[in-house]
Amino acid sequence: MPTNRIDTVGLAKRVVNGDKRAVARAISLVENRDPVAEELLKLLFPHTGRAQRIGITGPPGVGKSSLTSGLVSAARAQDKSVGVISVDPSSPFTQGALLGDRIRLSEHFLDSEVFIRSMGSRGHLGGLAESTVEASLVLDAAGKDVIFIETVGVGQSEIEVVTISDTVVLVLMPGSGDSIQALKAGVMEIPDIIVVNKKDHPQAEQMIDEVYGMLCLKGQSDGWIPPVLGTQAQTGEGVPELWEQIEAHIAQAKQNGAFHLRRERQLEQAVMALAVKRMAGRLQREAHSNPELAGILRSVAERNTDPLSAVRLILTRVFGVRDEEV
Amino acid sequence: MPTNRIDTVGLAKRVVNGDKRAVARAISLVENRDPVAEELLKLLFPHTGRAQRIGITGPPGVGKSSLTSGLVSAARAQDKSVGVISVDPSSPFTQGALLGDRIRLSEHFLDSEVFIRSMGSRGHLGGLAESTVEASLVLDAAGKDVIFIETVGVGQSEIEVVTISDTVVLVLMPGSGDSIQALKAGVMEIPDIIVVNKKDHPQAEQMIDEVYGMLCLKGQSDGWIPPVLGTQAQTGEGVPELWEQIEAHIAQAKQNGAFHLRRERQLEQAVMALAVKRMAGRLQREAHSNPELAGILRSVAERNTDPLSAVRLILTRVFGVRDEEV
Repeated sequence: MPTNRIDTVGLAKRVVNGDKRAVARAISLVENRDPVAEELLKLLFPHTGRAQRIGITGPPGVGKSSLTSGLVSAARAQDKSVGVISVDPSSPFTQGALLGDRIRLSEHFLDSEVFIRSMGSRGHLGGLAESTVEASLVLDAAGKDVIFIETVGVGQSEIEVVTISDTVVLVLMPGSGDSIQALKAGVMEIPDIIVVNKKDHPQAEQMIDEVYGMLCLKGQSDGWIPPVLGTQAQTGEGVPELWEQIEAHIAQAKQNGAFHLRRERQLEQAVMALAVKRMAGRLQREAHSNPELAGILRSVAERNTDPLSAVRLILTRVFGVRDEEV
Repeated sequence: MPTNRIDTVGLAKRVVNGDKRAVARAISLVENRDPVAEELLKLLFPHTGRAQRIGITGPPGVGKSSLTSGLVSAARAQDKSVGVISVDPSSPFTQGALLGDRIRLSEHFLDSEVFIRSMGSRGHLGGLAESTVEASLVLDAAGKDVIFIETVGVGQSEIEVVTISDTVVLVLMPGSGDSIQALKAGVMEIPDIIVVNKKDHPQAEQMIDEVYGMLCLKGQSDGWIPPVLGTQAQTGEGVPELWEQIEAHIAQAKQNGAFHLRRERQLEQAVMALAVKRMAGRLQREAHSNPELAGILRSVAERNTDPLSAVRLILTRVFGVRDEEV
């Protein structure tokens, strides 16, 4: 998509001043992988690091959006400014919503201190898009006190939300058994807080017990024992307690140093992941257009070149990486 | 791990001749990332491409291993030689098993035409290890007619098993609701065959209906409509029908060309993913030992360098990629 000349410095300034339209524009540039986005993020980055980033994840349909909506109200009641990023394709933030959801969300849409943005998952099946990380940086630079990142959690994306949140809330509901199994089997990392939504469901108590049992076996590092909360997102029941626990988690992590360490590790991993994605993106783009690359791939398909030799050829000949380093 | 001199050419020959101990040795070399593995795979690769590769995936605890065991029997009844690779940490192939499972599996352990191997997931949370792909190549070169790849499926790994199987079987059971939600939401790719195991469960019929409903909405390409089967893996009920459907899927795919296309695409993607993993592995290894890389990462943590500039520096300075290509 060609972009007309953009005054990147002016746009960055307006973002840092919290200009809502500038924030929306910046996120669009990021989402469209516009060439100026890189320059923009460079200007914004020194202004980041202040926001509390809360990841809300869990299987589709457990009520993450309703909970997020309740948490936005809780943060607003403390006069905190809020950003919401939603990457859940089944979320009412992202797509259609039931009438009730729409009405409740619309209150936030009209609040000038709340910025809500849904991100297309753009074929990044099971993964948080790179643009989600960058959108979070934009909102951070814009001075949002709290950023909620709602993401559909099925395996991999739970893991990824861990990499961009200060606090991870896993939302389950009675019947979402795969997630508990995945926690038990060690496929999913232990979140900081676990919520069993729809706590009026006859099997809710049993599920809370099951989660407690799993946590007893697994525990967690950083001296924080993940609390398990029952909520009823539709009525708002349990949401103030959830907000309290989120604040308690961040307070303790700041006190014992875990907060700082986690962020440092996250940034390291984000940079390395981004470097890797850049390489991957280039390979995908050039698979058929770059004659040398296409030739190597064809030779593998014909089983004349083995995959490992092909990799060596790609890294050295196509990328120009020094041979001794492959 | 240092390796004494290995006669790689001799080992490759023995693998191709189907020598069971040579196969075990080759897979161990692959799994331990031994330096000779690369040379070995290079020698084996021209002998691959003959085996039928069947991925069996689904949430933990749904009965994938019992089903796989039943399918092994079905393949053996046709006098086909079989390889099994298990990357499910909760699988009895991999770890401890109930007595019943052990007894049933042991029949295969004693069958010289069946090679069973569990792969540690080695911290590759939610992902099929690179070594799984390579182990599958070893079994393929060893002349196995059928290779079953059993992998715990939670999000990402379902997607990955698609990339190394000719036929993907998703196993669900009543109560594993997250997976259906994930299919509906488009987070998970549509498998070639869906099994609802524990079909005697009171809610099994309802689940089968739900899966059918989802499939009507989604359909599939390649002209294949994924069948939905009820099974009772513990008693073997429905397993012959499942085996028939697997054979039908492969027969149709071979007839309409989808089989060949899928393999070509898979090999391309595998090579590119491997190239990317090589780069990623090097970054992780050198994050703290390479002073230049460590310095770049420290500068990001201090918010003096933005992530995108850091990526550019890493690719050009650390990897030596030509600047105009980043």
